[in-house]
Amino acid sequence: MTVRTVQLVLHYDGAAFSGWQRQPNERTVQGELERVLTRLVGGHVAALGAGRTDAGVHARGQAVGVRVSERWSAANLRRALNALLPRDIWVSAAFDMRPEFHARYSALSRRYSYYVGTDEEARSPFRRHTEWPFARALDRALLDHATAPLVGDHCFVAFAVRGTAPDRDDHRCIVRSANWRDRVGGLVFEIEANRFLHHMVRFLVGTLVEVASGKREEDAIHRLLTASANDEVSPPAPAHGLFLDHVTYPPELYLQNE
Amino acid sequence: MTVRTVQLVLHYDGAAFSGWQRQPNERTVQGELERVLTRLVGGHVAALGAGRTDAGVHARGQAVGVRVSERWSAANLRRALNALLPRDIWVSAAFDMRPEFHARYSALSRRYSYYVGTDEEARSPFRRHTEWPFARALDRALLDHATAPLVGDHCFVAFAVRGTAPDRDDHRCIVRSANWRDRVGGLVFEIEANRFLHHMVRFLVGTLVEVASGKREEDAIHRLLTASANDEVSPPAPAHGLFLDHVTYPPELYLQNE
Repeated sequence: MTVRTVQLVLHYDGAAFSGWQRQPNERTVQGELERVLTRLVGGHVAALGAGRTDAGVHARGQAVGVRVSERWSAANLRRALNALLPRDIWVSAAFDMRPEFHARYSALSRRYSYYVGTDEEARSPFRRHTEWPFARALDRALLDHATAPLVGDHCFVAFAVRGTAPDRDDHRCIVRSANWRDRVGGLVFEIEANRFLHHMVRFLVGTLVEVASGKREEDAIHRLLTASANDEVSPPAPAHGLFLDHVTYPPELYLQNE
Repeated sequence: MTVRTVQLVLHYDGAAFSGWQRQPNERTVQGELERVLTRLVGGHVAALGAGRTDAGVHARGQAVGVRVSERWSAANLRRALNALLPRDIWVSAAFDMRPEFHARYSALSRRYSYYVGTDEEARSPFRRHTEWPFARALDRALLDHATAPLVGDHCFVAFAVRGTAPDRDDHRCIVRSANWRDRVGGLVFEIEANRFLHHMVRFLVGTLVEVASGKREEDAIHRLLTASANDEVSPPAPAHGLFLDHVTYPPELYLQNE
């Protein structure tokens, strides 16, 4: 059997999943996807995701690598999956990739968005599943000031979950951009980096929001970026405001459509 | 006990409700609201809604009249309800009203929106609960042309559910405005009228979309507005694309805040 390497791009609503990663007796995105793939293709198919999103975290650009028989074109695989997947997962695109494509190790960067609702209507049922209903104003100048130092090559151990081994090399991330954007009803934090530590975006947002609401000193981020332990960070922002938006791969890993 | 008349404005996500109206053994918005009101106030409190939305239909402006003891200010009642209501209902505002206020009979008009997704991403889990994932283009000129005749005082019997008594007077509605608006990923139909028949907006949208996609003749709406029976209408558009947006009352029914 000749094998085809396909990249699937996934949207999913994180609400009813215990995160991305397959776990016994838990409903996970990887578990649902592999179940449907296995049923379609016959024989177990592994689905490898670029980012292991936590319980409650959403995606509209999770990248997943699968290997299937050549008789499945990427477009047909996508259509068949969308017909069988539960309604909270949707395959928005499928690309034929070179055989050396690896969803996690080939990724050049990941981009996440975090939605903070600053008006009271953020509590509406149409927004509360996809935003942090903070429902108070935030000082935009303080936010921007506190965010600026994040860009660059830093050790993010202070923004890692406690209990993480304090080996500094494991906590290095290169942040390519980090910005706040205004939108109706609130703000969005957009961050792109080569990699992210577990819970890192949520710890960053939790800390930035405490700075912008005057609960922490203005140079908190700067100090945390030079800290050697993870014992001073603010509580993480809630999972359901976070979206994995996009994973970037080298263009040469994409096969031209024949 | 001196009684206070309060108008509550409600947002609700229709997905998990069997519509607005209280029914035995069904989860309904009125049922949930009355249960919480009764628990707060002590003794049964009736909640009268301006519009009886169907199962699956959403609201971000349902108006509800309640009568409570004077010791509840409108603001306190709103806060207490939001603390106790399930997460798919949210009270966005509460107004002190004159005693003659009646949520249904005092209403001058209701405004609804219907969301049609014309791009493929309308199938994303973040959109499919609040839009009709039509996922094909619609001819905007045909839509506008077919929509124009709706405005005015007409008999809408052709857009009523079958089995409705064919008494023309019961089917008269005065449509004040009806328009399509472009938005990212699709279109929104906005319609305001003094009253609406059961399923009327969904029948209108179903028919307009068939005209705009070339499945029905261009003058279908015009002909249906002069029909005397409800046997030629297109199938109704799905419930979950519909929002009750706003109910208008005469300004003099609002009490000034003291």
